[in-house]
Amino acid sequence: MSQNPYDLNPALAARYANAQAALPTPPAGANTAVLQHLLAHRSVRAYLPDALPEGTLAHLVAAAQSAPTSSNLQAWSVLAVTDPERKARLSEWSRDQAHIRQAPLFLVWLADLSRLDRVAQGLGLPSDANQYLEQFLVASIDASLAAQNAVVAAEALGLGTVYIGALRNRAPEVAAELKLPAHVFPLFGLCVGHPDPAQPAAVKPRLAQSVVLHHEHYSAEAEAREVPQYDQAIQAFQRDQGLPPVPWSQQASQRVAGPQSLSGRDHLRRFITWQGFELT
Amino acid sequence: MSQNPYDLNPALAARYANAQAALPTPPAGANTAVLQHLLAHRSVRAYLPDALPEGTLAHLVAAAQSAPTSSNLQAWSVLAVTDPERKARLSEWSRDQAHIRQAPLFLVWLADLSRLDRVAQGLGLPSDANQYLEQFLVASIDASLAAQNAVVAAEALGLGTVYIGALRNRAPEVAAELKLPAHVFPLFGLCVGHPDPAQPAAVKPRLAQSVVLHHEHYSAEAEAREVPQYDQAIQAFQRDQGLPPVPWSQQASQRVAGPQSLSGRDHLRRFITWQGFELT
Repeated sequence: MSQNPYDLNPALAARYANAQAALPTPPAGANTAVLQHLLAHRSVRAYLPDALPEGTLAHLVAAAQSAPTSSNLQAWSVLAVTDPERKARLSEWSRDQAHIRQAPLFLVWLADLSRLDRVAQGLGLPSDANQYLEQFLVASIDASLAAQNAVVAAEALGLGTVYIGALRNRAPEVAAELKLPAHVFPLFGLCVGHPDPAQPAAVKPRLAQSVVLHHEHYSAEAEAREVPQYDQAIQAFQRDQGLPPVPWSQQASQRVAGPQSLSGRDHLRRFITWQGFELT
Repeated sequence: MSQNPYDLNPALAARYANAQAALPTPPAGANTAVLQHLLAHRSVRAYLPDALPEGTLAHLVAAAQSAPTSSNLQAWSVLAVTDPERKARLSEWSRDQAHIRQAPLFLVWLADLSRLDRVAQGLGLPSDANQYLEQFLVASIDASLAAQNAVVAAEALGLGTVYIGALRNRAPEVAAELKLPAHVFPLFGLCVGHPDPAQPAAVKPRLAQSVVLHHEHYSAEAEAREVPQYDQAIQAFQRDQGLPPVPWSQQASQRVAGPQSLSGRDHLRRFITWQGFELT
Protein backbone atom coordinates (compact mmCIF):
# COMPACT_ATOMS: atom_id res chain seq x y z
CA MET A 1 0.00 0.00 0.00
CA SER A 2 3.04 2.25 0.31
CA GLN A 3 3.29 5.00 -2.30
CA ASN A 4 6.96 5.24 -1.55
CA PRO A 5 9.37 4.73 -4.46
CA TYR A 6 11.96 3.09 -2.21
CA ASP A 7 12.39 -0.67 -2.21
CA LEU A 8 14.57 -1.57 0.75
CA ASN A 9 15.26 -5.15 -0.27
CA PRO A 10 18.18 -4.63 -2.69
CA ALA A 11 20.05 -2.66 0.02
CA LEU A 12 19.19 -5.38 2.50
CA ALA A 13 20.40 -8.13 0.19
CA ALA A 14 23.81 -6.42 0.04
CA ARG A 15 23.91 -5.82 3.79
CA TYR A 16 23.32 -9.50 4.59
CA ALA A 17 24.93 -10.96 1.44
CA ASN A 18 21.66 -12.75 0.94
CA ALA A 19 19.55 -12.23 -2.17
CA GLN A 20 16.51 -13.53 -0.25
CA ALA A 21 16.74 -10.96 2.56
CA ALA A 22 13.49 -9.03 2.88
CA LEU A 23 11.85 -6.56 5.24
CA PRO A 24 8.12 -5.99 5.65
CA THR A 25 6.85 -2.86 3.86
CA PRO A 26 7.10 -0.01 6.38
CA PRO A 27 3.77 1.36 7.65
CA ALA A 28 2.05 4.14 5.69
CA GLY A 29 3.59 7.49 6.56
CA ALA A 30 7.02 6.03 7.27
CA ASN A 31 9.97 8.02 5.98
CA THR A 32 11.33 5.24 3.81
CA ALA A 33 13.96 7.55 2.30
CA VAL A 34 15.66 7.69 5.71
CA LEU A 35 15.59 3.88 6.11
CA GLN A 36 17.03 3.46 2.62
CA HIS A 37 19.70 6.03 3.43
CA LEU A 38 20.81 4.17 6.58
CA LEU A 39 20.93 0.76 4.89
CA ALA A 40 23.07 2.10 2.05
CA HIS A 41 25.98 3.22 4.30
CA ARG A 42 29.48 2.37 3.15
CA SER A 43 32.82 3.52 4.55
CA VAL A 44 34.85 5.53 2.03
CA ARG A 45 38.64 5.21 1.94
CA ALA A 46 39.37 7.11 -1.32
CA TYR A 47 38.59 10.82 -1.70
CA LEU A 48 38.82 13.57 -4.29
CA PRO A 49 40.84 16.61 -3.19
CA ASP A 50 37.82 18.89 -3.82
CA ALA A 51 36.94 21.36 -1.07
CA LEU A 52 33.68 20.89 0.81
CA PRO A 53 30.68 23.13 0.07
CA GLU A 54 30.46 26.16 2.37
CA GLY A 55 28.52 25.41 5.51
CA THR A 56 29.21 21.67 5.51
CA LEU A 57 30.69 21.76 8.99
CA ALA A 58 27.69 23.70 10.38
CA HIS A 59 25.33 21.05 8.94
CA LEU A 60 27.36 18.21 10.46
CA VAL A 61 27.58 19.82 13.89
CA ALA A 62 23.85 20.65 13.93
CA ALA A 63 23.05 17.00 13.18
CA ALA A 64 25.54 15.85 15.82
CA GLN A 65 24.06 18.16 18.47
CA SER A 66 20.59 16.85 17.61
CA ALA A 67 21.58 13.39 18.87
CA PRO A 68 20.51 12.48 22.41
CA THR A 69 22.98 13.21 25.22
CA SER A 70 22.96 11.75 28.74
CA SER A 71 21.15 14.14 31.15
CA ASN A 72 21.76 16.90 28.57
CA LEU A 73 25.37 17.05 29.80
CA GLN A 74 26.66 17.36 26.21
CA ALA A 75 29.89 15.78 27.37
CA TRP A 76 31.58 15.79 23.99
CA SER A 77 33.34 18.10 21.55
CA VAL A 78 34.45 17.84 17.95
CA LEU A 79 37.66 19.28 16.56
CA ALA A 80 37.89 20.12 12.86
CA VAL A 81 41.28 19.71 11.20
CA THR A 82 41.77 21.05 7.67
CA ASP A 83 45.45 22.11 7.86
CA PRO A 84 47.31 19.75 5.48
CA GLU A 85 50.40 19.44 7.68
CA ARG A 86 48.38 18.67 10.78
CA LYS A 87 46.36 16.09 8.83
CA ALA A 88 49.62 14.55 7.62
CA ARG A 89 50.88 14.20 11.19
CA LEU A 90 47.59 12.70 12.37
CA SER A 91 47.71 10.31 9.42
CA GLU A 92 51.26 9.25 10.27
CA TRP A 93 50.19 8.47 13.84
CA SER A 94 47.17 6.50 12.57
CA ARG A 95 48.91 3.72 10.70
CA ASP A 96 49.72 6.15 7.87
CA GLN A 97 46.24 5.93 6.37
CA ALA A 98 46.37 7.93 3.11
CA HIS A 99 42.68 8.89 3.22
CA ILE A 100 43.33 11.12 6.26
CA ARG A 101 45.62 13.22 4.06
CA GLN A 102 43.24 13.03 1.08
CA ALA A 103 39.98 14.04 2.73
CA PRO A 104 39.64 17.83 2.98
CA LEU A 105 38.14 17.58 6.49
CA PHE A 106 39.25 15.40 9.40
CA LEU A 107 37.05 15.50 12.48
CA VAL A 108 38.38 14.38 15.86
CA TRP A 109 35.57 13.34 18.20
CA LEU A 110 36.33 14.06 21.82
CA ALA A 111 34.95 12.56 25.02
CA ASP A 112 34.94 15.87 26.89
CA LEU A 113 34.44 16.20 30.65
CA SER A 114 36.65 19.29 30.88
CA ARG A 115 33.78 21.63 30.00
CA LEU A 116 31.77 20.28 32.93
CA ASP A 117 34.81 20.76 35.18
CA ARG A 118 35.01 24.40 34.08
CA VAL A 119 31.27 24.97 34.45
CA ALA A 120 31.28 23.55 38.00
CA GLN A 121 34.43 25.47 38.90
CA GLY A 122 32.78 28.67 37.66
CA LEU A 123 30.07 28.12 40.30
CA GLY A 124 32.64 27.22 42.96
CA LEU A 125 31.41 23.60 42.97
CA PRO A 126 33.34 20.30 42.82
CA SER A 127 33.18 17.94 39.80
CA ASP A 128 34.51 14.84 41.52
CA ALA A 129 32.14 12.48 39.66
CA ASN A 130 34.23 13.11 36.54
CA GLN A 131 36.89 10.83 38.05
CA TYR A 132 34.56 7.84 37.79
CA LEU A 133 34.46 5.28 34.98
CA GLU A 134 30.74 6.10 34.66
CA GLN A 135 31.47 9.65 33.55
CA PHE A 136 34.16 8.54 31.11
CA LEU A 137 31.54 6.19 29.66
CA VAL A 138 28.89 8.93 29.49
CA ALA A 139 31.29 11.15 27.55
CA SER A 140 32.34 8.33 25.20
CA ILE A 141 28.72 7.37 24.49
CA ASP A 142 27.70 11.02 23.98
CA ALA A 143 30.53 11.55 21.49
CA SER A 144 29.66 8.35 19.61
CA LEU A 145 25.95 9.17 19.25
CA ALA A 146 26.82 12.67 18.04
CA ALA A 147 29.41 11.37 15.55
CA GLN A 148 27.03 8.83 14.07
CA ASN A 149 24.44 11.54 13.42
CA ALA A 150 27.17 13.53 11.66
CA VAL A 151 28.00 10.49 9.50
CA VAL A 152 24.36 10.13 8.46
CA ALA A 153 24.22 13.88 7.70
CA ALA A 154 27.46 13.83 5.70
CA GLU A 155 26.08 11.08 3.49
CA ALA A 156 22.88 13.10 3.04
CA LEU A 157 25.10 15.93 1.75
CA GLY A 158 26.55 13.53 -0.83
CA LEU A 159 29.82 13.10 1.07
CA GLY A 160 31.64 9.99 2.25
CA THR A 161 33.13 9.21 5.65
CA VAL A 162 35.25 6.65 7.47
CA TYR A 163 35.92 6.40 11.20
CA ILE A 164 39.57 6.23 12.26
CA GLY A 165 39.94 4.18 15.45
CA ALA A 166 43.69 4.09 14.78
CA LEU A 167 43.76 7.66 16.10
CA ARG A 168 44.09 5.94 19.50
CA ASN A 169 47.33 4.18 18.44
CA ARG A 170 49.41 7.23 19.37
CA ALA A 171 46.94 9.05 21.59
CA PRO A 172 49.59 11.05 23.55
CA GLU A 173 50.96 12.59 20.34
CA VAL A 174 47.43 13.36 19.13
CA ALA A 175 46.48 15.01 22.43
CA ALA A 176 49.62 17.20 22.38
CA GLU A 177 49.08 18.18 18.73
CA LEU A 178 45.48 19.23 19.36
CA LYS A 179 46.27 20.84 22.75
CA LEU A 180 43.69 18.77 24.56
CA PRO A 181 43.32 19.71 28.23
CA ALA A 182 42.86 17.22 31.08
CA HIS A 183 39.59 15.26 30.97
CA VAL A 184 39.44 15.36 27.16
CA PHE A 185 40.04 12.09 25.30
CA PRO A 186 40.37 11.72 21.48
CA LEU A 187 37.90 8.87 20.94
CA PHE A 188 38.23 8.45 17.16
CA GLY A 189 38.72 10.39 13.94
CA LEU A 190 36.41 10.77 10.97
CA CYS A 191 37.44 11.54 7.39
CA VAL A 192 34.89 13.62 5.45
CA GLY A 193 35.11 14.27 1.73
CA HIS A 194 33.87 13.68 -1.77
CA PRO A 195 34.17 9.95 -2.59
CA ASP A 196 36.49 9.22 -5.50
CA PRO A 197 34.12 7.75 -8.12
CA ALA A 198 37.06 5.82 -9.62
CA GLN A 199 37.32 3.75 -6.42
CA PRO A 200 33.72 3.17 -5.35
CA ALA A 201 33.14 1.74 -1.87
CA ALA A 202 30.91 -1.30 -1.39
CA VAL A 203 28.29 -2.13 1.25
CA LYS A 204 29.98 -4.54 3.67
CA PRO A 205 27.95 -7.62 4.61
CA ARG A 206 27.22 -8.17 8.30
CA LEU A 207 26.43 -11.13 10.54
CA ALA A 208 22.85 -12.46 10.37
CA GLN A 209 20.35 -10.60 12.56
CA SER A 210 19.84 -13.73 14.68
CA VAL A 211 23.48 -13.49 15.84
CA VAL A 212 23.31 -9.93 17.23
CA LEU A 213 19.64 -9.86 18.29
CA HIS A 214 18.56 -11.60 21.50
CA HIS A 215 15.05 -11.99 22.91
CA GLU A 216 14.38 -11.60 26.64
CA HIS A 217 17.66 -13.39 27.51
CA TYR A 218 21.12 -13.49 25.98
CA SER A 219 21.60 -16.47 23.67
CA ALA A 220 24.55 -17.50 21.51
CA GLU A 221 22.55 -20.30 19.90
CA ALA A 222 22.48 -18.94 16.33
CA GLU A 223 26.26 -18.59 16.11
CA ALA A 224 27.12 -22.24 15.35
CA ARG A 225 24.85 -22.05 12.30
CA GLU A 226 25.43 -18.48 11.15
CA VAL A 227 29.13 -17.71 11.74
CA PRO A 228 30.37 -20.38 9.25
CA GLN A 229 27.92 -18.99 6.68
CA TYR A 230 29.20 -15.48 7.33
CA ASP A 231 32.79 -16.68 6.95
CA GLN A 232 31.81 -17.79 3.44
CA ALA A 233 29.96 -14.54 2.66
CA ILE A 234 32.89 -12.34 3.75
CA GLN A 235 35.30 -14.33 1.60
CA ALA A 236 33.01 -13.99 -1.44
CA PHE A 237 32.84 -10.23 -0.73
CA GLN A 238 36.63 -9.98 -0.47
CA ARG A 239 37.09 -11.85 -3.77
CA ASP A 240 34.65 -9.40 -5.38
CA GLN A 241 36.77 -6.54 -4.03
CA GLY A 242 40.01 -8.08 -5.30
CA LEU A 243 41.19 -8.79 -1.74
CA PRO A 244 42.68 -12.04 -0.45
CA PRO A 245 39.82 -14.02 1.12
CA VAL A 246 40.11 -14.57 4.88
CA PRO A 247 37.24 -16.03 6.95
CA TRP A 248 35.77 -13.43 9.32
CA SER A 249 36.25 -15.65 12.36
CA GLN A 250 39.98 -15.93 11.57
CA GLN A 251 40.37 -12.18 10.92
CA ALA A 252 38.46 -11.25 14.08
CA SER A 253 40.42 -13.75 16.18
CA GLN A 254 43.73 -12.27 15.02
CA ARG A 255 42.45 -8.84 16.01
CA VAL A 256 41.67 -9.90 19.60
CA ALA A 257 44.54 -12.35 20.12
CA GLY A 258 46.50 -10.26 22.62
CA PRO A 259 48.20 -6.92 23.36
CA GLN A 260 50.44 -7.30 20.30
CA SER A 261 47.32 -7.11 18.05
CA LEU A 262 46.24 -3.70 19.45
CA SER A 263 48.71 -1.53 17.45
CA GLY A 264 49.86 0.34 20.55
CA ARG A 265 46.41 0.72 22.08
CA ASP A 266 47.40 -1.71 24.83
CA HIS A 267 48.97 1.42 26.40
CA LEU A 268 45.70 3.37 26.25
CA ARG A 269 44.87 2.90 29.90
CA ARG A 270 48.10 4.62 30.93
CA PHE A 271 47.40 7.56 28.61
CA ILE A 272 43.84 7.95 29.85
CA THR A 273 45.07 8.05 33.44
CA TRP A 274 47.74 10.57 32.45
CA GLN A 275 44.99 12.62 30.75
CA GLY A 276 43.35 12.96 34.17
CA PHE A 277 40.66 10.26 34.13
CA GLU A 278 41.01 8.10 37.24
CA LEU A 279 38.29 5.65 36.05
CA THR A 280 37.39 4.95 39.69
CA MET B 1 18.27 26.74 -6.22
CA SER B 2 17.13 23.73 -4.23
CA GLN B 3 13.89 22.13 -5.39
CA ASN B 4 13.55 20.52 -2.00
CA PRO B 5 10.44 21.31 0.05
CA TYR B 6 12.39 21.20 3.32
CA ASP B 7 13.42 24.38 5.07
CA LEU B 8 15.89 23.45 7.79
CA ASN B 9 15.87 26.77 9.60
CA PRO B 10 12.74 26.33 11.78
CA ALA B 11 14.17 23.04 13.13
CA LEU B 12 17.49 24.78 13.66
CA ALA B 13 15.87 27.71 15.49
CA ALA B 14 14.37 25.23 17.98
CA ARG B 15 17.64 23.31 18.36
CA TYR B 16 19.61 26.43 19.27
CA ALA B 17 16.74 28.40 20.87
CA ASN B 18 17.63 31.14 18.44
CA ALA B 19 15.14 32.44 15.89
CA GLN B 20 18.05 33.80 13.83
CA ALA B 21 19.80 30.43 13.48
CA ALA B 22 20.33 29.58 9.81
CA LEU B 23 22.19 27.04 7.71
CA PRO B 24 23.34 27.48 4.11
CA THR B 25 21.07 25.77 1.57
CA PRO B 26 22.47 22.27 1.08
CA PRO B 27 24.08 21.59 -2.32
CA ALA B 28 21.87 20.38 -5.17
CA GLY B 29 21.29 16.66 -4.89
CA ALA B 30 21.51 16.64 -1.08
CA ASN B 31 18.99 14.48 0.72
CA THR B 32 17.48 17.31 2.72
CA ALA B 33 14.76 15.03 4.09
CA VAL B 34 17.43 13.17 6.06
CA LEU B 35 18.95 16.40 7.45
CA GLN B 36 15.50 17.62 8.46
CA HIS B 37 14.80 14.27 10.09
CA LEU B 38 17.98 14.40 12.20
CA LEU B 39 17.42 18.00 13.34
CA ALA B 40 13.86 17.22 14.45
CA HIS B 41 14.87 14.55 17.01
CA ARG B 42 13.19 14.66 20.39
CA SER B 43 13.31 12.14 23.24
CA VAL B 44 9.87 10.69 24.03
CA ARG B 45 8.92 9.89 27.64
CA ALA B 46 5.17 9.18 27.18
CA TYR B 47 3.93 6.29 25.05
CA LEU B 48 0.64 4.75 23.92
CA PRO B 49 0.26 1.06 24.80
CA ASP B 50 -0.26 0.17 21.10
CA ALA B 51 1.75 -2.75 19.75
CA LEU B 52 4.45 -2.04 17.15
CA PRO B 53 3.86 -2.86 13.46
CA GLU B 54 5.11 -6.30 12.47
CA GLY B 55 8.72 -6.22 11.36
CA THR B 56 9.66 -3.12 13.37
CA LEU B 57 12.48 -4.92 15.15
CA ALA B 58 13.93 -6.24 11.87
CA HIS B 59 13.98 -2.68 10.48
CA LEU B 60 15.72 -1.32 13.60
CA VAL B 61 18.35 -4.07 13.64
CA ALA B 62 19.07 -3.71 9.91
CA ALA B 63 19.66 0.01 10.42
CA ALA B 64 21.83 -0.69 13.50
CA GLN B 65 23.94 -3.24 11.62
CA SER B 66 24.42 -0.74 8.79
CA ALA B 67 26.37 1.55 11.15
CA PRO B 68 30.16 1.39 10.95
CA THR B 69 31.90 -1.03 13.34
CA SER B 70 35.58 -1.04 14.31
CA SER B 71 37.56 -3.47 12.09
CA ASN B 72 34.21 -5.15 11.29
CA LEU B 73 34.39 -6.81 14.73
CA GLN B 74 30.67 -6.15 15.32
CA ALA B 75 31.40 -6.15 19.05
CA TRP B 76 27.83 -5.43 20.14
CA SER B 77 24.47 -7.10 20.61
CA VAL B 78 20.96 -5.88 21.25
CA LEU B 79 18.46 -7.60 23.51
CA ALA B 80 14.72 -7.05 22.91
CA VAL B 81 12.47 -7.09 25.96
CA THR B 82 8.69 -7.12 25.48
CA ASP B 83 7.64 -9.23 28.48
CA PRO B 84 5.70 -6.82 30.74
CA GLU B 85 7.02 -8.29 33.99
CA ARG B 86 10.62 -8.14 32.85
CA LYS B 87 10.10 -4.55 31.66
CA ALA B 88 8.63 -3.73 35.07
CA ARG B 89 11.71 -5.10 36.82
CA LEU B 90 14.07 -3.22 34.49
CA SER B 91 12.05 -0.07 35.10
CA GLU B 92 12.25 -0.52 38.88
CA TRP B 93 16.03 -0.81 38.64
CA SER B 94 16.20 2.29 36.40
CA ARG B 95 14.86 4.91 38.80
CA ASP B 96 11.34 3.55 38.28
CA GLN B 97 10.88 5.34 34.95
CA ALA B 98 7.26 4.74 33.90
CA HIS B 99 8.00 4.95 30.16
CA ILE B 100 9.97 1.68 30.33
CA ARG B 101 6.75 -0.04 31.41
CA GLN B 102 4.65 1.92 28.89
CA ALA B 103 6.70 1.40 25.74
CA PRO B 104 5.88 -1.93 24.05
CA LEU B 105 9.56 -2.54 23.24
CA PHE B 106 12.60 -2.02 25.44
CA LEU B 107 15.97 -2.57 23.78
CA VAL B 108 19.08 -3.23 25.86
CA TRP B 109 22.25 -2.32 23.97
CA LEU B 110 25.18 -4.52 24.87
CA ALA B 111 28.92 -3.96 24.58
CA ASP B 112 29.66 -7.57 23.60
CA LEU B 113 33.15 -9.08 23.51
CA SER B 114 31.90 -12.55 24.44
CA ARG B 115 31.10 -13.42 20.82
CA LEU B 116 34.71 -12.72 19.84
CA ASP B 117 35.87 -14.88 22.78
CA ARG B 118 33.72 -17.74 21.47
CA VAL B 119 34.84 -17.26 17.86
CA ALA B 120 38.53 -17.34 18.86
CA GLN B 121 37.99 -20.27 21.18
CA GLY B 122 36.32 -22.16 18.31
CA LEU B 123 39.58 -21.83 16.38
CA GLY B 124 41.65 -22.77 19.42
CA LEU B 125 43.05 -19.23 19.63
CA PRO B 126 43.41 -16.83 22.59
CA SER B 127 41.39 -13.60 22.90
CA ASP B 128 43.55 -11.89 25.50
CA ALA B 129 43.15 -8.42 23.94
CA ASN B 130 39.56 -8.46 25.22
CA GLN B 131 40.97 -7.80 28.70
CA TYR B 132 42.20 -4.36 27.61
CA LEU B 133 40.40 -1.05 28.10
CA GLU B 134 40.80 -0.53 24.34
CA GLN B 135 38.53 -3.47 23.56
CA PHE B 136 35.93 -2.41 26.12
CA LEU B 137 35.95 0.97 24.39
CA VAL B 138 35.64 -0.60 20.91
CA ALA B 139 32.58 -2.55 22.05
CA SER B 140 31.01 0.48 23.74
CA ILE B 141 31.55 2.67 20.67
CA ASP B 142 30.24 -0.05 18.31
CA ALA B 143 27.08 -0.45 20.41
CA SER B 144 26.54 3.32 20.54
CA LEU B 145 26.89 3.84 16.78
CA ALA B 146 24.50 0.94 16.13
CA ALA B 147 21.95 2.21 18.66
CA GLN B 148 21.94 5.71 17.21
CA ASN B 149 21.17 4.34 13.74
CA ALA B 150 18.27 2.41 15.31
CA VAL B 151 16.99 5.63 16.89
CA VAL B 152 17.06 7.41 13.53
CA ALA B 153 15.27 4.44 11.92
CA ALA B 154 12.62 4.24 14.67
CA GLU B 155 11.75 7.89 14.11
CA ALA B 156 11.54 7.23 10.36
CA LEU B 157 8.94 4.55 11.21
CA GLY B 158 6.92 7.18 13.08
CA LEU B 159 7.98 5.88 16.51
CA GLY B 160 9.54 7.63 19.48
CA THR B 161 12.54 6.63 21.59
CA VAL B 162 14.43 7.58 24.71
CA TYR B 163 17.79 6.25 25.91
CA ILE B 164 17.91 4.91 29.47
CA GLY B 165 21.37 5.43 30.98
CA ALA B 166 19.83 4.64 34.39
CA LEU B 167 19.96 0.99 33.32
CA ARG B 168 23.51 1.16 34.69
CA ASN B 169 22.27 2.14 38.19
CA ARG B 170 21.72 -1.50 39.09
CA ALA B 171 23.82 -3.20 36.44
CA PRO B 172 24.35 -6.46 38.41
CA GLU B 173 20.59 -7.07 38.68
CA VAL B 174 20.13 -6.24 34.99
CA ALA B 175 22.92 -8.62 33.94
CA ALA B 176 21.44 -11.46 36.03
CA GLU B 177 17.91 -10.83 34.71
CA LEU B 178 19.10 -10.91 31.07
CA LYS B 179 21.53 -13.82 31.67
CA LEU B 180 24.46 -11.87 30.29
CA PRO B 181 27.66 -13.94 30.06
CA ALA B 182 31.14 -12.64 30.92
CA HIS B 183 32.44 -9.89 28.62
CA VAL B 184 28.93 -8.55 27.96
CA PHE B 185 28.04 -5.17 29.47
CA PRO B 186 24.56 -3.54 29.40
CA LEU B 187 25.53 -0.10 28.09
CA PHE B 188 22.08 1.56 28.07
CA GLY B 189 18.42 0.87 27.39
CA LEU B 190 16.15 2.33 24.73
CA CYS B 191 12.35 2.66 24.92
CA VAL B 192 10.61 2.31 21.56
CA GLY B 193 6.91 3.01 21.04
CA HIS B 194 4.17 5.21 19.64
CA PRO B 195 4.47 8.68 21.18
CA ASP B 196 1.42 9.71 23.21
CA PRO B 197 0.04 12.68 21.22
CA ALA B 198 -1.50 14.05 24.44
CA GLN B 199 2.01 14.62 25.84
CA PRO B 200 4.07 15.82 22.88
CA ALA B 201 7.84 15.98 23.31
CA ALA B 202 9.76 19.14 22.45
CA VAL B 203 13.08 19.68 20.70
CA LYS B 204 15.61 20.42 23.46
CA PRO B 205 17.92 23.38 22.84
CA ARG B 206 21.66 22.73 22.86
CA LEU B 207 24.79 24.76 23.49
CA ALA B 208 25.94 27.06 20.67
CA GLN B 209 28.03 25.37 17.98
CA SER B 210 31.03 27.51 18.93
CA VAL B 211 31.12 25.78 22.34
CA VAL B 212 31.38 22.18 21.07
CA LEU B 213 33.25 22.83 17.80
CA HIS B 214 36.99 23.51 17.87
CA HIS B 215 39.29 24.38 14.96
CA GLU B 216 42.79 22.88 14.69
CA HIS B 217 43.30 23.16 18.49
CA TYR B 218 41.06 22.76 21.51
CA SER B 219 39.70 26.09 22.73
CA ALA B 220 37.27 26.89 25.55
CA GLU B 221 37.14 30.54 24.53
CA ALA B 222 33.46 30.68 23.49
CA GLU B 223 32.20 29.34 26.83
CA ALA B 224 32.37 32.57 28.83
CA ARG B 225 30.07 34.21 26.28
CA GLU B 226 27.80 31.31 25.35
CA VAL B 227 27.19 29.32 28.55
CA PRO B 228 25.38 32.20 30.34
CA GLN B 229 23.19 32.66 27.23
CA TYR B 230 22.44 28.93 27.21
CA ASP B 231 21.55 29.06 30.92
CA GLN B 232 18.89 31.63 29.96
CA ALA B 233 17.67 29.60 26.97
CA ILE B 234 17.28 26.40 28.99
CA GLN B 235 15.29 28.22 31.66
CA ALA B 236 12.96 29.70 29.02
CA PHE B 237 12.54 26.18 27.58
CA GLN B 238 11.76 24.74 31.03
CA ARG B 239 9.16 27.44 31.71
CA ASP B 240 7.55 26.61 28.33
CA GLN B 241 7.42 22.97 29.41
CA GLY B 242 5.90 23.80 32.80
CA LEU B 243 9.09 22.78 34.59
CA PRO B 244 10.88 24.73 37.33
CA PRO B 245 13.64 26.77 35.64
CA VAL B 246 17.19 25.79 36.61
CA PRO B 247 20.25 27.16 34.77
CA TRP B 248 22.03 24.45 32.78
CA SER B 249 25.37 25.15 34.44
CA GLN B 250 23.78 24.55 37.85
CA GLN B 251 21.98 21.38 36.76
CA ALA B 252 25.08 19.97 35.09
CA SER B 253 27.27 20.83 38.08
CA GLN B 254 24.94 18.97 40.44
CA ARG B 255 25.13 15.95 38.16
CA VAL B 256 28.95 15.80 38.28
CA ALA B 257 29.43 16.92 41.89
CA GLY B 258 30.61 13.58 43.26
CA PRO B 259 29.89 9.86 43.69
CA GLN B 260 26.60 10.65 45.48
CA SER B 261 25.28 12.23 42.26
CA LEU B 262 25.81 9.04 40.20
CA SER B 263 22.71 7.11 41.42
CA GLY B 264 24.71 4.00 42.20
CA ARG B 265 26.87 4.13 39.09
CA ASP B 266 29.89 4.97 41.26
CA HIS B 267 29.99 1.16 41.74
CA LEU B 268 30.10 0.47 38.01
CA ARG B 269 33.81 -0.21 37.90
CA ARG B 270 33.45 -3.06 40.39
CA PHE B 271 30.60 -4.60 38.35
CA ILE B 272 32.52 -4.32 35.08
CA THR B 273 35.48 -6.10 36.66
CA TRP B 274 33.16 -8.76 38.04
CA GLN B 275 31.67 -9.13 34.55
CA GLY B 276 35.14 -10.18 33.36
CA PHE B 277 36.57 -6.98 31.88
CA GLU B 278 39.99 -6.30 33.40
CA LEU B 279 40.32 -2.90 31.63
CA THR B 280 44.11 -3.36 31.55
